[in-house]
Amino acid sequence: MTQSATAAAHPNLALVKYWGYSEPSLNLPANSSISITLSGATTITSVTFDSTLDDDLFTLNDSPGTAVASRRVSAHLDRARQLAGSVDRAHVSSTTDFPTAVGMASSAAAFAALSLAATRALRLDLSPRELSILARKGSGSACRSVFGGYVEWSKGSHDSNSFARPLYPPQHWDLRVVTVAFGGRPKPVSSEEGHRAAVRSPLYTARLRELDGTLDIVREALHRRDFAGLGIAVEREALSLHAIAMTSPLVEYPWVSGIIYMEPETIRLIRAVQDWRAQGAPVYFTLDAGPAVHLLCEPAYLHTLLEEIRALFGLQSHQVWISSPGRGAWEVEGPLST
Amino acid sequence: MTQSATAAAHPNLALVKYWGYSEPSLNLPANSSISITLSGATTITSVTFDSTLDDDLFTLNDSPGTAVASRRVSAHLDRARQLAGSVDRAHVSSTTDFPTAVGMASSAAAFAALSLAATRALRLDLSPRELSILARKGSGSACRSVFGGYVEWSKGSHDSNSFARPLYPPQHWDLRVVTVAFGGRPKPVSSEEGHRAAVRSPLYTARLRELDGTLDIVREALHRRDFAGLGIAVEREALSLHAIAMTSPLVEYPWVSGIIYMEPETIRLIRAVQDWRAQGAPVYFTLDAGPAVHLLCEPAYLHTLLEEIRALFGLQSHQVWISSPGRGAWEVEGPLST
Repeated sequence: MTQSATAAAHPNLALVKYWGYSEPSLNLPANSSISITLSGATTITSVTFDSTLDDDLFTLNDSPGTAVASRRVSAHLDRARQLAGSVDRAHVSSTTDFPTAVGMASSAAAFAALSLAATRALRLDLSPRELSILARKGSGSACRSVFGGYVEWSKGSHDSNSFARPLYPPQHWDLRVVTVAFGGRPKPVSSEEGHRAAVRSPLYTARLRELDGTLDIVREALHRRDFAGLGIAVEREALSLHAIAMTSPLVEYPWVSGIIYMEPETIRLIRAVQDWRAQGAPVYFTLDAGPAVHLLCEPAYLHTLLEEIRALFGLQSHQVWISSPGRGAWEVEGPLST
Repeated sequence: MTQSATAAAHPNLALVKYWGYSEPSLNLPANSSISITLSGATTITSVTFDSTLDDDLFTLNDSPGTAVASRRVSAHLDRARQLAGSVDRAHVSSTTDFPTAVGMASSAAAFAALSLAATRALRLDLSPRELSILARKGSGSACRSVFGGYVEWSKGSHDSNSFARPLYPPQHWDLRVVTVAFGGRPKPVSSEEGHRAAVRSPLYTARLRELDGTLDIVREALHRRDFAGLGIAVEREALSLHAIAMTSPLVEYPWVSGIIYMEPETIRLIRAVQDWRAQGAPVYFTLDAGPAVHLLCEPAYLHTLLEEIRALFGLQSHQVWISSPGRGAWEVEGPLST
């Protein structure tokens, strides 16, 4: 007997970043965060529970998933199976139109889509909040990709009160996010290692103390659609995350003095943004835990911005995704061919 | 009537960084710092007090100094004149074999040499401590270039107790410092602006709290000649300074969210150092408030390191200076031709 469902989800871009755990085993975050769901990239995942399977099978873009990724998918399926009282193994087939490990929150889209597909296949009818809690346990920021538009994840204090909720729907404010990723090597330190190391930064507690004020500023800027107010706050917040990463010792790798997620192109682009803005251009940057740069602008400036990026990087290897505020995770009719 | 003297000084490389003032008007620092005096670069300055001059004249590398630099030189001459009870104006001619504003502490060498030349020309016989205090008022880190080898600047609490002293002479530990500067634009924010902005970083107080421990670690590593212990501490300390700069808002430039001193090549080189070290190479980096990278190694590794740097940057525009622990500021026989 088989039970199938297919779901899609977008990654999301944190305007106020989740960085560091209060409880790693449950992905409980040390701080609340705010994001935009990104329409420009999508993960689609089909889950087929099959009582004849001996093991879970995971393919990503039609290739077998790595052992690490497969274990993570199986652990997440266990959470869904436990909710449904099922013991059936599943075939999970995921396709994605953007690269992993460049700082584009690929795991957020992945675990939002997987949570929805797995629970629908198992005929569980979770509320959005329950789905957000489940997605969080797969990958913290996945709890935000359950929702569309502008989303806040309240850190909570235990498993049942740490979930995301929509602040504003996509149509509240028609911003554009231009994600620029560089064809370099994958980032040297995973986000999970970064989260775990963050508490060892001597600057970390000071960052946490600053964050309530940052959350207020960003919420208020979103409410008033204050682009400059949002932009400066978002840049400062991204630099704060990188300041913490840079000062986080990695006990597992004693030769690494601090985590540097930036690549040379990262510096080139964010310094260019500062220059453009000094000349009046309405564009702001943010960074996740990776080398990619996300540029925020209003729709009227998009064309000029894309030309500036092309002029800056010329024929160099870089990829661009253009997003609007996107929708939350959704079920797709019929399974993909698996 | 004329009175002349000529003095030379090296820049110095902070192993524990001076960043932020406790009292800006006196260059009193918020924290103590430790440096190596760098033999590989030198500033030579001749000062001729001349009662027939109407104004101070300042030339740098045989060209008239900028208005800003000339005012800073004059203000420093005033301090020396006040000590000597002189009102004579002076001709100051300075030559330097390394560029300014790349993160090589050009002002440290400049004000150490100027302090020594001016006071010798005025027949003041200052003790090293008095000379260090005077140099500090010209440019904070200049107080360290008065001394050779390994130097500590104790922050002090007022003008008369904030000065440097030698920790170990140059021959205590024969390290090499390879300074790699890039032919880019000058840094966008001066060190002085960075010092002033530092206290506005929400992470700054946390950095200061960390520093007593860092000073102990670096002093102990110097004492024991523990290269790996020194290297990791020095890298962390450099990244901490850049973490503070990145999170320091510049009220004068509201479009700048944080101070980014790194250039793309900076990231390229420090990530390469992390890679080399992962493979066992004994080399560590540090940064000042600029894009240049300073690499620490022991003499036996110097040749390999220079080859690695050449392989990394190829024909790209970069300059390299090689230093050992150098001597403190010294008087040079006879004035330069002026």
